[in-house]
Amino acid sequence: MKKVQVLVRLKPGVLDVQGKAVEHGIADMGFESISGVRVGKLIELEVSQDTEESRKQIDELCTKLLSNPIIEDYEIRES
Amino acid sequence: MKKVQVLVRLKPGVLDVQGKAVEHGIADMGFESISGVRVGKLIELEVSQDTEESRKQIDELCTKLLSNPIIEDYEIRES
Repeated sequence: MKKVQVLVRLKPGVLDVQGKAVEHGIADMGFESISGVRVGKLIELEVSQDTEESRKQIDELCTKLLSNPIIEDYEIRES
Repeated sequence: MKKVQVLVRLKPGVLDVQGKAVEHGIADMGFESISGVRVGKLIELEVSQDTEESRKQIDELCTKLLSNPIIEDYEIRES
């Protein structure tokens, strides 16, 4: 059983309203050294086999189900 | 400028409805080798200084703003 992490981020330049809200929250807490907040998704899953086919499936999953390729990028991390 | 990633996950045992929805989507796509899907949050931020104080601030940020400590765990990754 292999564990796979998928990190989904808004593409650079796409307005991140959640990130802006967090930045305002941080400003309210008085933490001036923190900036540039971006909020994305973390998807963790288990794969029962590590084959070329299963890698293709995870890639297809990312583009069709986990991310919106128009506004988001994804990164696959295997551990 | 240091980049920091915060990974927020539901605690083990807490029902992950988003994860279940993704699992159903995966089943519909016919990918039987993928299971155990959990969906969390990825927060990326920039810190202008790397001091004991700024580490404390990030920790406070995680417990008070970025996660709900009752149902979520967080992990801080520095790069």
